[in-house]
Amino acid sequence: MNKIKKDNFRPADDALWFVPLGGSGEIGMNVNLYGTMGKWLMVDCGISFPDETMPGIEIIMPDVSFIAERRADLVGLVITHGHEDHIGAIEHLWDELQCPIYATPFTAMMIRGKLGRSNKKARIVELPVRGSFELGPFKGELIHVTHSIPEAHMLLLTTPNGTVLHTGDWKLDPDPVVGQLSDEARLQELGREDVMAMICDSTNAMVPGHSGSEIEAQRGLTEQFGLYRNRIAVTCFASNIARLKSIALAARAQGRYVALCGRSLWRNAEIAAELGYLPEFGEFLSEHEAMQSPRDKIVIVCTGCQGEPRSALARIAVNDHPMAELEAGDVVIYSSRDIPGNEKAIGRVQNLLVAAGIKVVTSDLAKVHVSGHPAQEELTKLYHWVRPKLSVPVHGEIRHQMAHADLAAQCNVPAAIIPANGQIIRLGPGLHEVVGEVPVGIMGLDGKVLRRIDRQALKHRRKLGFAGVVVVSMALDRQGQPAHAPQVTMVGLEDEEQMADLQADLADIALEAYEGLSRGARQDDQAVKNTVMQGLRRFLNDMQGKKPIVDVHVMRV
Amino acid sequence: MNKIKKDNFRPADDALWFVPLGGSGEIGMNVNLYGTMGKWLMVDCGISFPDETMPGIEIIMPDVSFIAERRADLVGLVITHGHEDHIGAIEHLWDELQCPIYATPFTAMMIRGKLGRSNKKARIVELPVRGSFELGPFKGELIHVTHSIPEAHMLLLTTPNGTVLHTGDWKLDPDPVVGQLSDEARLQELGREDVMAMICDSTNAMVPGHSGSEIEAQRGLTEQFGLYRNRIAVTCFASNIARLKSIALAARAQGRYVALCGRSLWRNAEIAAELGYLPEFGEFLSEHEAMQSPRDKIVIVCTGCQGEPRSALARIAVNDHPMAELEAGDVVIYSSRDIPGNEKAIGRVQNLLVAAGIKVVTSDLAKVHVSGHPAQEELTKLYHWVRPKLSVPVHGEIRHQMAHADLAAQCNVPAAIIPANGQIIRLGPGLHEVVGEVPVGIMGLDGKVLRRIDRQALKHRRKLGFAGVVVVSMALDRQGQPAHAPQVTMVGLEDEEQMADLQADLADIALEAYEGLSRGARQDDQAVKNTVMQGLRRFLNDMQGKKPIVDVHVMRV
Repeated sequence: MNKIKKDNFRPADDALWFVPLGGSGEIGMNVNLYGTMGKWLMVDCGISFPDETMPGIEIIMPDVSFIAERRADLVGLVITHGHEDHIGAIEHLWDELQCPIYATPFTAMMIRGKLGRSNKKARIVELPVRGSFELGPFKGELIHVTHSIPEAHMLLLTTPNGTVLHTGDWKLDPDPVVGQLSDEARLQELGREDVMAMICDSTNAMVPGHSGSEIEAQRGLTEQFGLYRNRIAVTCFASNIARLKSIALAARAQGRYVALCGRSLWRNAEIAAELGYLPEFGEFLSEHEAMQSPRDKIVIVCTGCQGEPRSALARIAVNDHPMAELEAGDVVIYSSRDIPGNEKAIGRVQNLLVAAGIKVVTSDLAKVHVSGHPAQEELTKLYHWVRPKLSVPVHGEIRHQMAHADLAAQCNVPAAIIPANGQIIRLGPGLHEVVGEVPVGIMGLDGKVLRRIDRQALKHRRKLGFAGVVVVSMALDRQGQPAHAPQVTMVGLEDEEQMADLQADLADIALEAYEGLSRGARQDDQAVKNTVMQGLRRFLNDMQGKKPIVDVHVMRV
Repeated sequence: MNKIKKDNFRPADDALWFVPLGGSGEIGMNVNLYGTMGKWLMVDCGISFPDETMPGIEIIMPDVSFIAERRADLVGLVITHGHEDHIGAIEHLWDELQCPIYATPFTAMMIRGKLGRSNKKARIVELPVRGSFELGPFKGELIHVTHSIPEAHMLLLTTPNGTVLHTGDWKLDPDPVVGQLSDEARLQELGREDVMAMICDSTNAMVPGHSGSEIEAQRGLTEQFGLYRNRIAVTCFASNIARLKSIALAARAQGRYVALCGRSLWRNAEIAAELGYLPEFGEFLSEHEAMQSPRDKIVIVCTGCQGEPRSALARIAVNDHPMAELEAGDVVIYSSRDIPGNEKAIGRVQNLLVAAGIKVVTSDLAKVHVSGHPAQEELTKLYHWVRPKLSVPVHGEIRHQMAHADLAAQCNVPAAIIPANGQIIRLGPGLHEVVGEVPVGIMGLDGKVLRRIDRQALKHRRKLGFAGVVVVSMALDRQGQPAHAPQVTMVGLEDEEQMADLQADLADIALEAYEGLSRGARQDDQAVKNTVMQGLRRFLNDMQGKKPIVDVHVMRV
């Protein structure tokens, strides 16, 4: 694979190019560029969450400086649907991009809400569901698909250099509970429209069969709600409007009212209601009303299905929620799956609930959740309908992408390219290949500062977290005599009670190391610093087997 | 529940007491105390692994100071089997305990190896498999059970105050491949022997059905080995001798040789061979021989099934292993389950393998693993055989312990106590209850130092990892004038390129804050320190939204 850095890459007139800036590999935010005839179109602009190698970072997103530097050629940003990993970076990156944003009404309202809360202004152009647009050399058509949020769309991009289908996130749900069915008729037509490449969701490419229908989750919830006579809480993703509706209908069938607990749930439900997706909204109770209702007449929907420590459910589990309360005999239903990496955090909350005598029902135990992403049967169907010349599996870790490519081959797709973030991929016409890569990286929101996360500060920070830090300052007079006892700061190295002893030891070690120097070397600040640092490091390693970060201040007074 | 701290608890003459020091709750090392008539018996002495709240810590174990302080009354340490979470702490804690250790030959040899490597001496008394002993008021009988290591035993303790069954880790495997069958006849007899309490393994208490037999894993491996014509690697736990034998027999059936890769595998296999558990040992090849054999004639067994970054498999995945190599078309079989919390690390190694074109087969895809712990069917069987008066679920997180207690109730066990570490539990006769708790905590091996992990240093270290540290030193002359420019150390706060600017800013802020003080306050070191610290903190929070640890050295020269 050609690894040539192409800082000055320009999408030539005779081909269609794809450059994923995020979304391929372990870090799953979706930011994609399509380029042709010197122009670029961005599709989606999402965030992801940091792993344990990024302490102190709240959210991550791609470095978009490549496209920001050529934003004069960026004709727009089109959003496929309103999930965080597709829209969450807009508020942080729009200042750099400053292009118009195209989205359907529900998605647009989600974006506007986020921009409003962070006081950012951006131009949002609303497209109708199943709408189309023309931006420079790109003709776009939104093809409606089902997913775990309303108004999800595939994007069919037609250019003078060929047509590609960017699927976004999708599934084929015969009864999605909220919103329209997937436009299967249109997808079937694409088989006759010479689709050059399909850039497609790999999340469930290792899962056999069909992802299942939302109506099955609704039936499972209805059944569960019928089993208990106490308070029931259900936790799910706050943007899963269909699930909210399923819960509302299941509760109604069992004579229970639904209360929402958590700001993001209220916010999303309100948007959905405003656009007609959730007529049940008017019946929802506040947490306060829920607490005053009979225990067998209430279902509380709350955030926290991934074990997030500040979520409503985590606070309920430690009895620290201002309003909502559960007690022994109540039930919590996880209408969700465990996202890999969150198992421990989820288990911790479940342990707290169970310890309080609360029953925990997960999707392993009852059919109370279905995935929003296509399993192998649905992927196979789509490949047979669309019959692209090239499969480009995105949105998954590499083992999912590889499994996806294998499946495409079984569906007689003649070729596949598994992209990595930053790669410049020529999709066609004719030859398809990776021709190089643009500079790319990950930015992390660190307090208020958006910074590249692969550099010095985070490496040091991780080392700090493992080994601690020691800073010793020495004041030396003109004769080279210490003018004051060395001062020592140690953090993360010793318990409070042994601190003073170790500080005194380190001050002695610093003086000893200094006194071991020749008269000449004592006049050389750098030599003093290095020798003292070395002495301290050796002592700490011998005594504690640890290698903290060590620094020495030398001041001539 | 009574939370009275009982630093001076003495196990009275008229009852039998149980005090778990580890093993209940999220941290799963097994260290148990039984007490009666003023004497204590310890059962197992294991380690566990730290979670993300314990950066820099390698292994953890309970604080045993309660029993160390009364070791004159500790009659011995009995080990049920040789897994790390049952023997791993002996080498670290024996100096404190200094009691004789009782174990069967295989387990004793594992312990001796560990003590030898860390240059510790301890008195180990070998008991035969199915052996018995008498230590003070405790008569012990080892009842052989199957588990994922040879010579696993339940421990039947008979005292003047009643009989209890401590199950250790077990399953009912009708064909364990290595070692004897579980002594079901003896377990069935216990139903007539008035067992007061059963302290029992909860790991799989939420898993329906039977854990399955090792022979099924062997059949699954045989089938897998027949499918491929390239090099095959299998990863499993190094102490799973039965799995090693299953791999050896499966390989032989398919005309392949077996090579071991990793020191712990060789070590355990050698011990097993010496005691007759692994006659296949003589046929095992070295990594070197494996690399020179035809690709379709070799199976390489390697460590790393939990994604451990320094394991053989992780090094093979990044092509950094000194000997073993895999290439596109080869196969890696995970003959193991994912331990919760390790999913991400395991996924990372699998992604690397798949990216190199290596096929990954997990126990989700093929029957290549069975658990070593009893599922609900086996637990039910044991309760019906033993018919204890009290169930005490240990070895699991609280949701597993609660599920276990529910199961015991369904088996007509009249009562259950779910213990927490440190609790003093009166098992009987007659009344059973939690009467208080002994001081307990977790010790972590931090470099060379064993320290309590719930104290200052680790809290600071975690904060460091999130927010970084700033140390500023100021030298002031007798007139209160700065005798040198303030020196600044910052770690984990800024990238290299912005470092110098921010350092200069912080030096300015320090001087400004100092100069804002009254003449009187300038003479007060503590006032100077506090004011400068405050100024620095405010600046960093305003500018970066971060709250690093800040310290200031004031030196009068």
